Amino acid sequence: MAFDALETPFGKVDRIIGGSATYAAWAASNFIKPIHMVSIVGGDFPKEEIAALEERGATFEGLDVVPDGKSFFWSGRYHLDMNTRDTLVTDLNVLAQFDPKIPDSYQDCEYVMLGNLAPAIQISVLNQLKKRPKLVILDTMNFWMDIALDELKQALGMADLLMVNDSEARQLGGEHSIVKAAKKIQAMGPKYLVIKKGEHGALLFYEGKIFSAPALPLEDVFDPTGAGDTFAGGFIGYLARIGDTSFESMKAGIIIGSAMASYCVEKFGPTRLKELTAADIDNRVKEFVALSNFEIRE
Amino acid sequence: MAFDALETPFGKVDRIIGGSATYAAWAASNFIKPIHMVSIVGGDFPKEEIAALEERGATFEGLDVVPDGKSFFWSGRYHLDMNTRDTLVTDLNVLAQFDPKIPDSYQDCEYVMLGNLAPAIQISVLNQLKKRPKLVILDTMNFWMDIALDELKQALGMADLLMVNDSEARQLGGEHSIVKAAKKIQAMGPKYLVIKKGEHGALLFYEGKIFSAPALPLEDVFDPTGAGDTFAGGFIGYLARIGDTSFESMKAGIIIGSAMASYCVEKFGPTRLKELTAADIDNRVKEFVALSNFEIRE
Repeated sequence: MAFDALETPFGKVDRIIGGSATYAAWAASNFIKPIHMVSIVGGDFPKEEIAALEERGATFEGLDVVPDGKSFFWSGRYHLDMNTRDTLVTDLNVLAQFDPKIPDSYQDCEYVMLGNLAPAIQISVLNQLKKRPKLVILDTMNFWMDIALDELKQALGMADLLMVNDSEARQLGGEHSIVKAAKKIQAMGPKYLVIKKGEHGALLFYEGKIFSAPALPLEDVFDPTGAGDTFAGGFIGYLARIGDTSFESMKAGIIIGSAMASYCVEKFGPTRLKELTAADIDNRVKEFVALSNFEIRE
Repeated sequence: MAFDALETPFGKVDRIIGGSATYAAWAASNFIKPIHMVSIVGGDFPKEEIAALEERGATFEGLDVVPDGKSFFWSGRYHLDMNTRDTLVTDLNVLAQFDPKIPDSYQDCEYVMLGNLAPAIQISVLNQLKKRPKLVILDTMNFWMDIALDELKQALGMADLLMVNDSEARQLGGEHSIVKAAKKIQAMGPKYLVIKKGEHGALLFYEGKIFSAPALPLEDVFDPTGAGDTFAGGFIGYLARIGDTSFESMKAGIIIGSAMASYCVEKFGPTRLKELTAADIDNRVKEFVALSNFEIRE
């Protein structure tokens, strides 16, 4: 949970609520509760943001508030294609001292989403769980592949599903071919692999099978920040709600996650996510069905 | 119909049969006959290649053979990502004097595919048809947008469907957003627009509707030459076979075209296309169904 300052071709915001856990929780809260949050913030983090998420079923016993500290701050500028961005500022602030403690009240957690962070911290969270969760999703990025590959590989060995973008999958798998890279990554531990391709949709790999989900073609992507975390939140929230982690359910989960992400990018930060109704989500999912549905005649 | 010399990360061939019409005819011949060819070649073009296509139902009254001329020759080198290529040699040869004459025996043609060529030549073909065909598909490329935009716009006004790749759609529509570019292009004439995205599949636009087709994730793309023409040939061949040009049929046509293209790239040139059986095509189409099929549970 953090602050972001964002600049896109459509406008700019100086300081807005962000962070993987924020986006994922807003998305997941449409499908399941409670959502047990684990994060660290400074005394500067707005109490009303926490209250709003509590209202949606999030719990915050696992939130470390450092009263005299400052929350993580990231500032970035997106280019016109929205696939590339420049990081302008990264202030770790309280995140530098993050040592998550999992409360006893979280021990019944069956669906775990580990946001993009140092693999050592992700491993520490899993090690604190007394019972193996039903599903552990790991998010990561190229940065950790560059500076903490050994720990990342250890984390991969503990996860059921890895979520990365296509360039990260190529880097981690050491193969240009996405299919070959996926095989190498699956051999590192995660049975399931989700490769996010932005405007080109997402791929799900499981054993020898592949599912390809479209992205909704949008007139404008206003702000892509948090789209990946929103996707993950929708995905895991849906799976938790139906209580099933089969390949078939994950396919549907990816469509749900994609629908949530397609809303996320319509406004700055999590603004659009906060407004969504069940009918909005249902309509968007129907658009995905129409988008990808076909019938072959003889 | 032409010769290509190709170099990919997987190997190289010095002189192989190529050309839009060749690929499109091989693909379409799995679905429909006759296929009336219009092209120009030199005396160097192998008679056995023409005979092989005749065996598949292609007719060649519209083929201009210039005995003492040389066939069009293109040579190119693909990079590892297979999305970018360098043209090494373009010898127009007899293509420089191409002035297609449509034989009377072709006048009943209902499904017309205009391969990528000077828009003036594409227009000339359409002007020679006494009856408006049921479906006119236009292929083009950035080159014609740069040097013959006015003629291209005239050709667009005569076509039902334009087939281009994503960067060409952006250039022609003058918009970075694919959705906005599609609207601009549709306003130029073609009711239907197919945007090919290579390894990311294809999009079909019609009125306010969009269909997104996946690409089959492949371990290796051996040689992408002709994949777009193969896609077009499979697409139009399927539509001609079922005799319908509705949006629903076109969605299926795009899956068929994608299946054909996924085979094309497995070997150099049209080699793989020539080997295909009906069972091969059926199996590949089933893979596309499995790839994109999902069901949302409540």
